Amino acid sequence: MPFVNIKKQYLAFGMLVFVVLFLFNSRPAIQCQFTPEVSTYVPTIYGITPTYARLAQKADLTRLSQTLMLVKNFHWIVIEDSETKTSLVENLLKESTLKYTHLNVKTHKSKHSTVMDVNICVFKTETITTSWYCASGVEQRNVALNWLRGHLKDSDDKRGAVYFMDDDNTYSLKVFDEMRKIKKVGVWPVGIVGGMRVEMPLVTDGKVSGFNAVWKPFRPFPIDMAGFAINATLFLLHPEAKFSRKVQSGFQESEILKYVATKDDLEPLAENCTKVYVWHTRTQKPSILNPKKLKHPPLPDDHIEV
Amino acid sequence: MPFVNIKKQYLAFGMLVFVVLFLFNSRPAIQCQFTPEVSTYVPTIYGITPTYARLAQKADLTRLSQTLMLVKNFHWIVIEDSETKTSLVENLLKESTLKYTHLNVKTHKSKHSTVMDVNICVFKTETITTSWYCASGVEQRNVALNWLRGHLKDSDDKRGAVYFMDDDNTYSLKVFDEMRKIKKVGVWPVGIVGGMRVEMPLVTDGKVSGFNAVWKPFRPFPIDMAGFAINATLFLLHPEAKFSRKVQSGFQESEILKYVATKDDLEPLAENCTKVYVWHTRTQKPSILNPKKLKHPPLPDDHIEV
Repeated sequence: MPFVNIKKQYLAFGMLVFVVLFLFNSRPAIQCQFTPEVSTYVPTIYGITPTYARLAQKADLTRLSQTLMLVKNFHWIVIEDSETKTSLVENLLKESTLKYTHLNVKTHKSKHSTVMDVNICVFKTETITTSWYCASGVEQRNVALNWLRGHLKDSDDKRGAVYFMDDDNTYSLKVFDEMRKIKKVGVWPVGIVGGMRVEMPLVTDGKVSGFNAVWKPFRPFPIDMAGFAINATLFLLHPEAKFSRKVQSGFQESEILKYVATKDDLEPLAENCTKVYVWHTRTQKPSILNPKKLKHPPLPDDHIEV
Repeated sequence: MPFVNIKKQYLAFGMLVFVVLFLFNSRPAIQCQFTPEVSTYVPTIYGITPTYARLAQKADLTRLSQTLMLVKNFHWIVIEDSETKTSLVENLLKESTLKYTHLNVKTHKSKHSTVMDVNICVFKTETITTSWYCASGVEQRNVALNWLRGHLKDSDDKRGAVYFMDDDNTYSLKVFDEMRKIKKVGVWPVGIVGGMRVEMPLVTDGKVSGFNAVWKPFRPFPIDMAGFAINATLFLLHPEAKFSRKVQSGFQESEILKYVATKDDLEPLAENCTKVYVWHTRTQKPSILNPKKLKHPPLPDDHIEV
């Protein structure tokens, strides 16, 4: 039956055309990659960063944002100490490719202001006296925690770690890997802080047994803000947890931790608190000359954003 | 002819099967991306960074390396001011995922030493006197340039840009995009340097017509090391180009530029020198307490790398 044979040939030819199309549809203009169907879930890290206007602000936020761009599943909550959101911070966040939330609240100057309300405190020890920046950013961090509670309530995924980050500190990528392991509160050493090379929890048999600290070692938790992160769910379980301006300088960390953990709950990370993955660096305050006082003043540069 | 109709149905069915296969072959286990066939060549950027041991060294190198990890086709040449390569820098580079070259040379203290040989110079202007770090790293940058010449001679690709980078300055990713455009020497503004918010070339009709600088404005090129990059090929064309310790503080930039360019050669980048993509930040020197002078000294922490 020649007719049937012709039809079979048509069928075979049609199939051949599609086999060829099937095989070559992805080359050379399309590249294909196998994506193995394994769980790639990593808990979100919520980085809470208060910031304030100053000459080195954009520089500090720029290099921090560039570190954060390398961190998987990171959500940056940036809170300006200002009446309104500035275009400098807004544009920086927009251009960063980061997932972010931009908030603002002006630090409230109440009549109950104490020494803790100003930015510079005196850091006095047995041997030296030096100026020292207090933990500022109380209102800013509290506004961020309120936002976070609302966000988690509305979200299907209530997991994550909360990390309070200064805009001029230095964070190795390794510290973010550590905080994904947190069950309740993770702790680790912090470099160059409190008058020490490294301020750190002491670990015995895998548990935090004390702290190596010389600046106010009587603090309930003598650790820096960069030295711990908290399971996000704990902020839903403890809606009252917040920072306070009514505590003395250096006690903000103890203030927030008291709501969510005891010393026994602390989980020593960074290889049992033997590695430094964060540093309490500070950017030197720039010395700028007053153009009005110069014999040969430069051209005005106020139109340039620095 | 029912027989023919059946054959047509077979043909149609066979084609349908392959159309379905064709359409769905890439889902859900395979992801496809269009890769347009355009040239993806980007010139190499050779970043030359002298570094020296100090408490904030690892912090500064860590955050800089994390910025550089986001730069395409970047080659980091790190030169330690030391007799031998330290394991701190070696491990940091190894773990960075960067393409790098690790060198070392100890700064030579000759009997011809002058004020330029020490790290701190006095920065005196009409109105204020403040301590100011001189351009150090002369030998280190020269060793890097020698290495670079050998590398380029042996390499098929002699293109690229050479950028002299301090380990504590701040570099936006945008500055690296700018320097890929360089034909000879590219220049741009630098934030927070020389007693100014921003020190910058002045541009008229797309050409550099002068410089807005107040610190030693009589320098041939009154710009900071962070404010320019040089086409790598020029270091082959000018094998004599190098830094010198016999010039006064602030003249290192002019020293190297005099070999490769005149003012007319400078290419104003960063939107005609109206944008700040680099900042001459400095990390504050940490105040560390002497444990021996404390009533309650901490446990020794010398075994911890900071």
